[in-house]
Amino acid sequence: MKFVSGDIVRRFFMDVLTYHGVCTEVREHVSEGLVQTSERGVDSHGIQLFPHYIAALKAGRINGYPNVKVTRSIPGAATVHADHTFGHAAGAFAMQNAIQMAEEVGVACVAVADSTHCGAAAYYGLMAAEKDMIGLFFTHASPHMLYPGAKHPTLGPNPMCFTAPMEGEEPFCLDMSTTVVTFNRLKIVCEEGGAAEPNWGVDEDGVPTTDPRRITHLFPIGGYKGYGLGMMIDVLSGLLSGMPVGPDVSCMYGNPLSEKRRLGHFCVAINIAAFEDIGIFKRRLSGYCKTLRQQAMADPGARAKVPGDPEKEMKMQRLREGIPVPDRLWKDLFRLGEEAGVVEKWLDEVSGR
Amino acid sequence: MKFVSGDIVRRFFMDVLTYHGVCTEVREHVSEGLVQTSERGVDSHGIQLFPHYIAALKAGRINGYPNVKVTRSIPGAATVHADHTFGHAAGAFAMQNAIQMAEEVGVACVAVADSTHCGAAAYYGLMAAEKDMIGLFFTHASPHMLYPGAKHPTLGPNPMCFTAPMEGEEPFCLDMSTTVVTFNRLKIVCEEGGAAEPNWGVDEDGVPTTDPRRITHLFPIGGYKGYGLGMMIDVLSGLLSGMPVGPDVSCMYGNPLSEKRRLGHFCVAINIAAFEDIGIFKRRLSGYCKTLRQQAMADPGARAKVPGDPEKEMKMQRLREGIPVPDRLWKDLFRLGEEAGVVEKWLDEVSGR
Repeated sequence: MKFVSGDIVRRFFMDVLTYHGVCTEVREHVSEGLVQTSERGVDSHGIQLFPHYIAALKAGRINGYPNVKVTRSIPGAATVHADHTFGHAAGAFAMQNAIQMAEEVGVACVAVADSTHCGAAAYYGLMAAEKDMIGLFFTHASPHMLYPGAKHPTLGPNPMCFTAPMEGEEPFCLDMSTTVVTFNRLKIVCEEGGAAEPNWGVDEDGVPTTDPRRITHLFPIGGYKGYGLGMMIDVLSGLLSGMPVGPDVSCMYGNPLSEKRRLGHFCVAINIAAFEDIGIFKRRLSGYCKTLRQQAMADPGARAKVPGDPEKEMKMQRLREGIPVPDRLWKDLFRLGEEAGVVEKWLDEVSGR
Repeated sequence: MKFVSGDIVRRFFMDVLTYHGVCTEVREHVSEGLVQTSERGVDSHGIQLFPHYIAALKAGRINGYPNVKVTRSIPGAATVHADHTFGHAAGAFAMQNAIQMAEEVGVACVAVADSTHCGAAAYYGLMAAEKDMIGLFFTHASPHMLYPGAKHPTLGPNPMCFTAPMEGEEPFCLDMSTTVVTFNRLKIVCEEGGAAEPNWGVDEDGVPTTDPRRITHLFPIGGYKGYGLGMMIDVLSGLLSGMPVGPDVSCMYGNPLSEKRRLGHFCVAINIAAFEDIGIFKRRLSGYCKTLRQQAMADPGARAKVPGDPEKEMKMQRLREGIPVPDRLWKDLFRLGEEAGVVEKWLDEVSGR
């Protein structure tokens, strides 16, 4: 395991994407989105996805030089037709549009059509919070979620993100899947040789297992409630954008990488100043989080956290110590660097030469 | 246990509210909101709340003749200052405003300040779906939700509702608290002599119990995820409207009924036609629900349901058979009818004279 500074990884990703002909704005969002996510400690949706994305780019699933179009017939709503580019660019472009409209209208929604995997929803939510807005981001995903008692998965672990700006610290950020764990998280547990908990899911025959390699069907949080939230996210992401939904959403892994995914996303920006003085809002939100962090715990050694706290702590650490790069990922990145002719630069930077 | 037609209960509620000086628009929403909720089978948030509401009205917590004000500085956002009237009227007025704005803007949000208990969130969500919009409604509530591992509850079972119109049937309607059960649901289980499940909550000393009378602290769905959703709903409901949040939200029961509750709500209307042809959207949503209802179950006798299905089935039954009125509630309603001088009319109508 090596530790590499986020800035070095950013530059390396930019170099590799440039080599593969990905246009500037797109490659900036892919690099920034993946590195920010790893810096925040969300390894399942961070830099480990890069080799998969490059493979999908080369095979034709992802379009690195898209002709993105925006349709808008009304002041507060628009659709981004992403032309199968990286989900990071599609989602960021959508949220930027939503923020701009919400400045004038008070709230705005943008649907995204013809997108691909977009990584961590927090990347988009945090854009809104930086502009003193509340951000919401939704996306559907590969169908791995099991309806309680069903035989086969029918929905994705469809995630959602909610962000809001705070006073004196980084934004409040709830970024959660509607399953107890995600498939990308399972992959990491497998690689680390860990065990699954009984409420994570079952194998393909519906048999409970603690072997994370055998889990194929994931349980929703709160039974039918999590399944209902997953459907809500599918409706917003897939039906408003005209994309496939439910079991028809294409899988990230297992399908030919030449196949377009046709994913949809949905984002909302709420202009806080349309409701409350922004200074008061931020101060009250910080006070609220402080109160909840200080609540009494049954175990006096325990400490309550609010959404975003683990990521804020991890970011402090990783800005200092770098992002961990497991051996398998290191090998993959090395290979991509060789192919793009930037491996010497990468090794020089990593070793601080 | 008696069964009474919803229309008779509606008229009775209107009569009692008129006697207590509640203005027309307010009493219509209280009567309709409570009866619709009971007709849909959600007894915890239906007509059983009426005696409590009248007690709160008489004691001064609820204002039956409010001076409601709307502030709006931007096309898609507004705040309703509800002057402590019934939450049903405040929430309905907010959603009507949101729908009207979303017609022109594409999406709109309305915050509600100085409100009281608003019953079932579905009442407001369904208003949007009837107008071919997606509706979202959020409210915070009495702090009964326990952070995982904490000693005292700090958040409400803060509910949310998501609705969308369907082709050939009533709307898709997800209306859920962010705790496994609500306190009003617990009350009903107590009255019916039922047992609590181990994942519902604990007693005030943090001890697990299956005695529903002893449960005071409710567990969130999915542990920290449900707690995070509860915080999101508190931020939307309380911080945008300038109302108290978290442990400072006043309790529905146990406090003097003269005390104003100062609750906040938040609603969103999304104009589907700004994104997709409304006919296509409704057809696709119906097809999607049909697919998920027909999914294979491990138990071949079981049947998958989508959000709103149990309520649609119950509504068919209760429109036929009437709403069940348990003995205790019957006595309370009788007493309220006597006080308002409408008990003869009520008895005549109930007995079909």
